Amino acid sequence: MQQKDSWLLPDGIEEILPADAKHLESLRRRLLDMFACWGYELVIPPFIDFLDSLLTGSGHDLDPQTFKLTDQLSGEMLGVRADMTPQVARIDAHHLKHEWPTRLCYYGTVLHTRGDPLEKTRSPLQIGAELYGHAGIDSDIEVIRLMLEMLALTGVLNVHLDLGHVGIYRSLSRQAGLSPAQEGELFDVLQRKARPELAEWIASYALDSDLQAMFLALPLLNGGAEVIGKARQVFAQADADLKQALADLETIAGRLARLFPSLPVSFDLAELRGYHYHTGVVFAAFTPSVGREIARGGRYDNIGGVFGRARPATGFSADLKLLAGLDSVKGHGEPENKIFAPCLDDTALAEKIRDLRAVGNTVIQQLPGQAGDGAAMGCTAVLVQENQNWFIKNLA
Amino acid sequence: MQQKDSWLLPDGIEEILPADAKHLESLRRRLLDMFACWGYELVIPPFIDFLDSLLTGSGHDLDPQTFKLTDQLSGEMLGVRADMTPQVARIDAHHLKHEWPTRLCYYGTVLHTRGDPLEKTRSPLQIGAELYGHAGIDSDIEVIRLMLEMLALTGVLNVHLDLGHVGIYRSLSRQAGLSPAQEGELFDVLQRKARPELAEWIASYALDSDLQAMFLALPLLNGGAEVIGKARQVFAQADADLKQALADLETIAGRLARLFPSLPVSFDLAELRGYHYHTGVVFAAFTPSVGREIARGGRYDNIGGVFGRARPATGFSADLKLLAGLDSVKGHGEPENKIFAPCLDDTALAEKIRDLRAVGNTVIQQLPGQAGDGAAMGCTAVLVQENQNWFIKNLA
Repeated sequence: MQQKDSWLLPDGIEEILPADAKHLESLRRRLLDMFACWGYELVIPPFIDFLDSLLTGSGHDLDPQTFKLTDQLSGEMLGVRADMTPQVARIDAHHLKHEWPTRLCYYGTVLHTRGDPLEKTRSPLQIGAELYGHAGIDSDIEVIRLMLEMLALTGVLNVHLDLGHVGIYRSLSRQAGLSPAQEGELFDVLQRKARPELAEWIASYALDSDLQAMFLALPLLNGGAEVIGKARQVFAQADADLKQALADLETIAGRLARLFPSLPVSFDLAELRGYHYHTGVVFAAFTPSVGREIARGGRYDNIGGVFGRARPATGFSADLKLLAGLDSVKGHGEPENKIFAPCLDDTALAEKIRDLRAVGNTVIQQLPGQAGDGAAMGCTAVLVQENQNWFIKNLA
Repeated sequence: MQQKDSWLLPDGIEEILPADAKHLESLRRRLLDMFACWGYELVIPPFIDFLDSLLTGSGHDLDPQTFKLTDQLSGEMLGVRADMTPQVARIDAHHLKHEWPTRLCYYGTVLHTRGDPLEKTRSPLQIGAELYGHAGIDSDIEVIRLMLEMLALTGVLNVHLDLGHVGIYRSLSRQAGLSPAQEGELFDVLQRKARPELAEWIASYALDSDLQAMFLALPLLNGGAEVIGKARQVFAQADADLKQALADLETIAGRLARLFPSLPVSFDLAELRGYHYHTGVVFAAFTPSVGREIARGGRYDNIGGVFGRARPATGFSADLKLLAGLDSVKGHGEPENKIFAPCLDDTALAEKIRDLRAVGNTVIQQLPGQAGDGAAMGCTAVLVQENQNWFIKNLA
């Protein structure tokens, strides 16, 4: 076995050095400030929690991705959060208990035991926003707008939005009288986007021909604005819920087209991303240079039910480390003003340094006998004394 | 067994709700900005790490406080960080490799399996700063000043500073020819501040009478400025290293007295806090309402050695959640400008909202059919329309 260097990090676990940390901190502030301007208040859920709480309800799918720990105090099983959304829903349901809509945002590391096959990291820096207490499409539109604002502020170019609605598949399953087990099986087939397998599965089950045609058409219903028109024809015999889902998608797309005229929007009605979790509209943002979604979200009503209060909910999340890497304006900020001060025990110098720092300048004071001068340490200026006064002198 | 509510949190693990989260975020920004003005750059070490890396060298004492995990990918043991200092030292030693002094700061959650008996939390929000690459007392003074600035910015009142130097005990042990095991035993006795036990231990060991007297005097050497004078008498026969340690303490205290004339400073020469870890000056800050130190630090040269580069180092850390609770100015900030906008699909309204948010106002737009009006949601003003224009109207 190879000797492990003591500075190696586990696969998918990163440490962030000054330049990148500064960029992340700046992004963090801009995004949280923007969320605050829309009324989204920051909450900080705990990093570890009772495993039962983390995996309750919608969190069940997270089980294999959740690191488990034994609590030495209680003897109970703890988990490291793999997703902050269930924790934030609990805060809405249990602590805040507002009657009116509640807007919350969050930011923090989550850990995954294995990571997604498409992800390189096992420690995403999750950032997201959630709107609780409103069931209509206006709240879906608000969070989609907020997600797009986040991507714009982050400097991600060529964003493309994908819309779907898990209510369509749910309605078809209900119309077909599928058992939960059958619904799950068919879901897996659809996820694999394996159309011959889908045909086989449907043929083996005694569905009426209308429903067979509707299920078979589902994977074909992806593309531009024309998808909605096609879907209306395909689902002419579907129930009212399905038709409402289509109408909602069309309204949302129409409103977004007015707000973001140049945003490419596509539809994918077989996209069941987060199916066990979501209950309505689902959406994801893409950019050409990344082979998977860069932000995603959707409606997930009733998630707070297990914490004593079922509320409608819609929201989105993203990995800020991934977004930071896509920032087209990265490093184009203000040039840094970093001033080097000599090592002198002088009251006037001490006051000058204090004043410069107080208005936001970086001043590094030389230490006695240190290696390296101001230029070596990346300073752009030095403090020099003339006639008892201290002045800033720029380095060439 | 009592039925566990699904919203209970493990002992010592907290979730932070909007008002406190906002306060913490504001403190975080002010402190990181202040650190940056002193040249301390932010780094973000990973939340989990190979256990070997976390417990190497100075981290050894952390073993019982470290949560352990098995890495499903590598099969290796991982740990959740219980202290960020060793990780930051690794970044200095392995990644940055500057010849000149390196100033780093950090901020993040650490977890403790049991917590300190004096701490209520098992998940402190650790904030700290470290200065690598300089061995003189000027760097100790710089980090003590930075720690005091942090406490001042945080709004902690009646701060009191405690100074010590682990070099004194080390010198005595060396002069006495104590084996490492004996040095450790005596250390435990001193930590318990049990003077009769100390006398017994010393009597059982054939020390010359000068050394006996010096060991016995150690626990008595705590108090104000007079301690240094007393120590000079007590340690008249001690070696040069011990005398240098005393001289360093005196110089540091003198420089601090000029910089912070009203700061109470005391000395405790038997205080061996972090003894296995520290190599020189140690310091801690106290405030009367908290029964333990609220920030602490000291010199710990050579910590980076196990990562391939032994460097002098000095620094401090604190739990920002603890400090935030001591903030005397908490909640005395700017009153919030939170504006409620009606639910209308109106272009002029949308533009007004966008403009207000762009300059930092919080605007919450009503959702169709929502419960609660602007006042219920804590808004201080509403947007109203007059003659086609939108105006802010303050709520009484």
